[in-house]
Amino acid sequence: MATLKVPAQIPSPEDDAEQLGKAFQGWGTDEGLIVKILSHRNSAQRELIRAAYASAHGEDLLTSLDKELSSDFERIVMLWTLGPAERDALLAHEATKKKVTSPNNFILMEIACTRSPLELFKTKQAYQARYKRSIEEDVAYHTSGDFRRLLVPLVSTFRYVGDDVNTTLAKTEAKILHEKIADKAYGDEELIRILTTRSKTQLNATLNHYNNEYGNSITKDLKTDPDNEYLKLLRSTIKCFIFPEKYFEKVLRLAINKMGTDEWALTRVVTTRAEVDLQRIADEYQRRNSVPLDIAVSKDTSGDYKDMLLALLGREE
Amino acid sequence: MATLKVPAQIPSPEDDAEQLGKAFQGWGTDEGLIVKILSHRNSAQRELIRAAYASAHGEDLLTSLDKELSSDFERIVMLWTLGPAERDALLAHEATKKKVTSPNNFILMEIACTRSPLELFKTKQAYQARYKRSIEEDVAYHTSGDFRRLLVPLVSTFRYVGDDVNTTLAKTEAKILHEKIADKAYGDEELIRILTTRSKTQLNATLNHYNNEYGNSITKDLKTDPDNEYLKLLRSTIKCFIFPEKYFEKVLRLAINKMGTDEWALTRVVTTRAEVDLQRIADEYQRRNSVPLDIAVSKDTSGDYKDMLLALLGREE
Repeated sequence: MATLKVPAQIPSPEDDAEQLGKAFQGWGTDEGLIVKILSHRNSAQRELIRAAYASAHGEDLLTSLDKELSSDFERIVMLWTLGPAERDALLAHEATKKKVTSPNNFILMEIACTRSPLELFKTKQAYQARYKRSIEEDVAYHTSGDFRRLLVPLVSTFRYVGDDVNTTLAKTEAKILHEKIADKAYGDEELIRILTTRSKTQLNATLNHYNNEYGNSITKDLKTDPDNEYLKLLRSTIKCFIFPEKYFEKVLRLAINKMGTDEWALTRVVTTRAEVDLQRIADEYQRRNSVPLDIAVSKDTSGDYKDMLLALLGREE
Repeated sequence: MATLKVPAQIPSPEDDAEQLGKAFQGWGTDEGLIVKILSHRNSAQRELIRAAYASAHGEDLLTSLDKELSSDFERIVMLWTLGPAERDALLAHEATKKKVTSPNNFILMEIACTRSPLELFKTKQAYQARYKRSIEEDVAYHTSGDFRRLLVPLVSTFRYVGDDVNTTLAKTEAKILHEKIADKAYGDEELIRILTTRSKTQLNATLNHYNNEYGNSITKDLKTDPDNEYLKLLRSTIKCFIFPEKYFEKVLRLAINKMGTDEWALTRVVTTRAEVDLQRIADEYQRRNSVPLDIAVSKDTSGDYKDMLLALLGREE
C-alpha cells in the first residue's frame, strides 16, 4: 500500500512543467509550489512532466532543481523526481563509490532484495546507461571477503518469482543452513548459494521449516555476536526477503531516534517506498513505536524538507 | 555472418503450417519437405509458423515433430524450430540436470559467454517460464568447487556492453591476473571477479595488456596442466569472450574428428549459430582443417540429418 496521493483531476504535464518553471523564476524559489506539484504525481506522471519541462525549457528538470534547491530538500526532491530504476541506480552507484562502510552494504542489499527481479533488472539497465559499467562489476570491485561473497550474487541473480515450493528441497536446505550456522560458518558457500539463488517463496518455506524443526528462527540463531557487521547484514537480508516492512521500519526508527536525524536514510526510505508499501511500513512503525510515523517525522524535521516528507507520507495538508 | 538462407519469396505462415501438416500425414513422414520448409525460415518466421500450426491443428508443432521424427534428425529439427531463448533454456536445463560432467559445464559457459547480455537475459526468462526455477539456482545447485565459483557468476552477471575502456584498470587487472596465474591460484576470487564481471571490451583490453606486458597470452599461461578440466574451462571461457568463432571451430573439429561423430555437439553448434556467425565459424574451420566445413560434415553424417545440417550450413541443394 502506497502513501502517495494523486488528485483525481490533475493538470496536463505541460501545465505542471510551466508551473515548475514559474516556481524557479524571479527572486527566490517557490518551494511550496514544487512540493505541491511533484509530491502528488506518480512516477509515470513525473516522467511526462520531465519530458514536457525539457522541451519547454531546453533543460532537464533535474538540472533546474539542482541549481535552485539545496541540502536535504534538494536531495528528497531530486530522488523523488527520478523514476524507480534511475533512482535505485543512483543510490547503488553512491553506495559502491564511497569507501565501503556498513550503510553502503545495507543499501546495496536493500535494493537487491526488496525490489522485484524485473525491477532490479531495469535498475541494472539504468545503471549501465548512466555509468557505462555494470552494477555487478562495481559491487564486486568495491567489496571484499564475506561481504563480497554475499553481495555480488545478491545483485547478480535474476531470481524466479512464483508460488512453486519444493518441500523436500526446503527440508534439505533448512538442514544445510542449520549445520552451517551451528558451525558458525556464516560465509559458507552453500549457505550463500541458498540465500542468493532461491526464489523468495522457496526461501520462506525453507526458513519456516528451519524454525519448526530447530526451535529458533534463523535470524535468532544468527545473533551470536551483536557487533559483527556481516551477521547484521545477513539478518537484514533475510528480513528483507521475508518481511520487508519490518526491515524498513527499523531503518526509519534508527534514522529518527538518532541524536541528529539521519536524513539520508529517512529520505531514501520515503522516496523509494512512497509508491510501493510505505503505508504498511508506517503501520509497522506505529505498532513498534506507539506513535504514528508522520508525527515522529514532523517532530524531527523542519521547513520545506518536512513538508515534502509529510506530503509523500500522504498526510493531508 | 549467418549461413541461414531465406528465399526472397516465402509462403505465408499458414501455407507453411499446412505443408508441414501434410508432411506428417499418411504412411510415413515426408522428411524432405520438413527440411525444405524449416531450414529456410528465420526465427521470427518459425515462430509465426508455430502459431499458425497450433491454431490449424490444435497441437504444438514441436509435439507433432516429437511424434513423427526420431534420433539425430528429430533433435536437430526440434532445436532449430525453437527460438534462440527457448533453445538456450533447453540446452542449459539439460546441462544442469545431468550428473555434471565436463561437456555440460562447457555448454553452460558457452551460453553465458557467447550470447549478448540481453540474449542471456531472455534465456533466463524462458528458463523460468518453462522450468519454474531460475537458471542461477540450478547451476549453483548442480555444480561445486572451482566450477561453481566460475559458472555461477558467468550465468548471473548482466554484463555491460560498450566500447568504453579504462586503460588504468586494464593494467591493474592484467597484473592481478598475472600474479594469480603465476601462483597457480586459478580459482582465486579476484581472477574470477575480473573474468565474470568486466565487459568484453574491457576484458579484451586487459588481456591484450597481459600479452604485451608479460610476453605470453593468458591462455598459454593457463596451459600448465593439459588434463586439468577446470583449466580447460577457463581457457575456453576466455576464447569465447575474445574469439568465439575459434572456440566453436574447435568444438566442431573435435565433434567431427571423433571415432563416431559427436552428433549432439554438431547439432548444438549448427542450430545455435546458423542465424548468427556460422559462416565465420566455417571460415575458421576451413583455415584450420584445410577442408570446407560442409564437405567434412557431409562425409561424416547421413540421411535426413545430413540434409538438415547442410541446409543450415547454407549449401545449395
